[in-house]
Amino acid sequence: MALFAERVNAVEYAIRDLVEEAKKLEKQGRKIVYVNIGDPLKYDFAPPAEMVEALYDAAKAQNRNFYTDSQGDRELREAIAEKEKRINKAFSINADDVVVTSGVSEAIFFLCAALIEKGDEALLGGPGYPPYIAFTKLFGGVPVYYRNDEGAGWQPDISDVEKKITPKTKFLLSINPNNPTGAVLDKKALRELIDLAAQHDLIFVSDEIYDLMAFDGEFTSAASLTKDVPIVGFNGFSKSYLAPGWRLGYAYFANADERLQQLKENMLRFARIRLCASTPAQRACIPVLLGKHAHVAEVKRKLKERGELSYRRLNEIDGLSAAKPKGAFYIFPRIEMNGRWRTDKEFVLDLLNKQNVLTVNGSGFGGYGESHFRIVFLPQPEVLNEVYDRIDAFMKSRK
Amino acid sequence: MALFAERVNAVEYAIRDLVEEAKKLEKQGRKIVYVNIGDPLKYDFAPPAEMVEALYDAAKAQNRNFYTDSQGDRELREAIAEKEKRINKAFSINADDVVVTSGVSEAIFFLCAALIEKGDEALLGGPGYPPYIAFTKLFGGVPVYYRNDEGAGWQPDISDVEKKITPKTKFLLSINPNNPTGAVLDKKALRELIDLAAQHDLIFVSDEIYDLMAFDGEFTSAASLTKDVPIVGFNGFSKSYLAPGWRLGYAYFANADERLQQLKENMLRFARIRLCASTPAQRACIPVLLGKHAHVAEVKRKLKERGELSYRRLNEIDGLSAAKPKGAFYIFPRIEMNGRWRTDKEFVLDLLNKQNVLTVNGSGFGGYGESHFRIVFLPQPEVLNEVYDRIDAFMKSRK
Repeated sequence: MALFAERVNAVEYAIRDLVEEAKKLEKQGRKIVYVNIGDPLKYDFAPPAEMVEALYDAAKAQNRNFYTDSQGDRELREAIAEKEKRINKAFSINADDVVVTSGVSEAIFFLCAALIEKGDEALLGGPGYPPYIAFTKLFGGVPVYYRNDEGAGWQPDISDVEKKITPKTKFLLSINPNNPTGAVLDKKALRELIDLAAQHDLIFVSDEIYDLMAFDGEFTSAASLTKDVPIVGFNGFSKSYLAPGWRLGYAYFANADERLQQLKENMLRFARIRLCASTPAQRACIPVLLGKHAHVAEVKRKLKERGELSYRRLNEIDGLSAAKPKGAFYIFPRIEMNGRWRTDKEFVLDLLNKQNVLTVNGSGFGGYGESHFRIVFLPQPEVLNEVYDRIDAFMKSRK
Repeated sequence: MALFAERVNAVEYAIRDLVEEAKKLEKQGRKIVYVNIGDPLKYDFAPPAEMVEALYDAAKAQNRNFYTDSQGDRELREAIAEKEKRINKAFSINADDVVVTSGVSEAIFFLCAALIEKGDEALLGGPGYPPYIAFTKLFGGVPVYYRNDEGAGWQPDISDVEKKITPKTKFLLSINPNNPTGAVLDKKALRELIDLAAQHDLIFVSDEIYDLMAFDGEFTSAASLTKDVPIVGFNGFSKSYLAPGWRLGYAYFANADERLQQLKENMLRFARIRLCASTPAQRACIPVLLGKHAHVAEVKRKLKERGELSYRRLNEIDGLSAAKPKGAFYIFPRIEMNGRWRTDKEFVLDLLNKQNVLTVNGSGFGGYGESHFRIVFLPQPEVLNEVYDRIDAFMKSRK
């Protein structure tokens, strides 16, 4: 009998695994520029000051250091529902429809734990965020990728989605704004995805963790587009509220029918085993949700400037081309491989070794990611310009 | 095809599921006394002040709100290793041997994810902490219970442990001090468990989350007893450091051989998917680990007083008897059922309905828990006396 479960071989997380390589080089005394992990706090970003003060108040004055309800603090759930209605124009969400999680990653865990058996399929956009792939595989499931179309600014190819629905499809996922492409879904495309889900009776999951970070064009929340079709929404405080290290996210169940109620109840069974998400963090996020969101304008200004700079610089480099990002803080350039590298991972390791710049290989993001790489454009413009100078030099050296 | 995965039916968490019943009664206007959940913060306990100040400093002055390494902040891991060596007398643990988790519950998740396949067995003490049962079942495994012997103050029955080892046993667990019995393991019994694990080549897991809460007799850490046998230790900040709501725990791998190194690496694969544990919380726990632990004496004083009160009062009640707790904050009385209740769950619900006191049924803690119930003796003595008055009245009314 093997000691370890087969699933240990199924999970791999490209974004973090490459870090081990970079660490080795650092031990040799080299200075690596990290544009691989989507963490605004490593650069000139910080959570809104009121969140930090509320964290202190919760832990000290209120001694809110105990366990909360497994579903989450009720006032926080009310504030989440209020924010989704006021800012994202959801039709109907209330506190009972919300489950608070330790980051969206835990919501993905609960979702896959509740739905995926051996051989079941999760219909994910490719390229897309790796934990959906990993948790699907962890439970013996098969990630199936519909095509996000680079030629159309990485909008989903609706006919491809339809083709890939099978009797084994357990849920259909949309990530909007998108990681790793920076696309913001057109309202029309999003509506078509929702219609397809309804037509085929699929659970539709809309990951909107970058909702307040659409800096070019308008973000549309799935729950704002329909009063009838059940929507599972995932969101949290890691990106739009700039507190990734707090590990606080949530799932909501909008327009919940009997089946979605059951999904919520089943996800709660897993939530109860782990007791609760961080209580001081939960209390700290209530005021900012109910507030004016004054921090958002400055965040968008920085992202727009850095996204446009990245788009311009990358498209000037021979052998690279990139669609224009409109939200989040990622750009996903295509590499003209021309036999210079066998895989995009080889490209990323070569770039790391030659120029000390760490990115992530596109194939780490599932289908349709190959021959690309992801850059996080959160650093200040001077750092980004240095990164692009190095990538330019690297591409010239590999002619 | 069923929509939901079979595993949703496998997980049930008695401690939290009963809460739903109590909430119903509260909605009817009744006031419930909760002695069901092991949360010191609901009573006259608070985390050490330096932890709260360090949390604020981490979030504000240091802007430590970003993701950490998936394995955990390096300085925290160094501090954990230092504490385990200095206070718990572990022979050899260093920062590389530590993995920081969102509570011990996440460590249990990683352990079971790495080890348990369908039909595999986890050899747990009965009665014991339910998440080990739930996560084993979540991955299709079978919890097997060795007998904790009530007549011997709930010490493990070593001959029963040996009898229950099979080729399918993936790990052997000890919880010390114990939840739900309040037992503190004798050094001899612990050594015998470790010897058995070594002899049968089993992974030995020692859950020591209540390590600084042994108020009667001496606590011995498994990692202090052997320089050779590999030990997986679980611990955290929810109990001994009084911050359950912070959700911060850790696993360490002492005397790690090749196999334990592999276990750590495989657990880290799952850790990477969820990115990291809370960063401000991680930073906040460094000073207290390295400090003098001045808070512990007062905590032990309260627990000793309340444990002894509980022991005395319960044994005075006709139809109940309890072994003396020596650590943690639980007492686990035996119920003389005499046909008055069909199950211990019926007893607990009857007590809740008649006297508005919520406890947990013993069968929720796995094998050898039936015909018992668990009381959390954290409340102030006057509250505890009121609880025991009500239980006394209840037992008299059910003669």
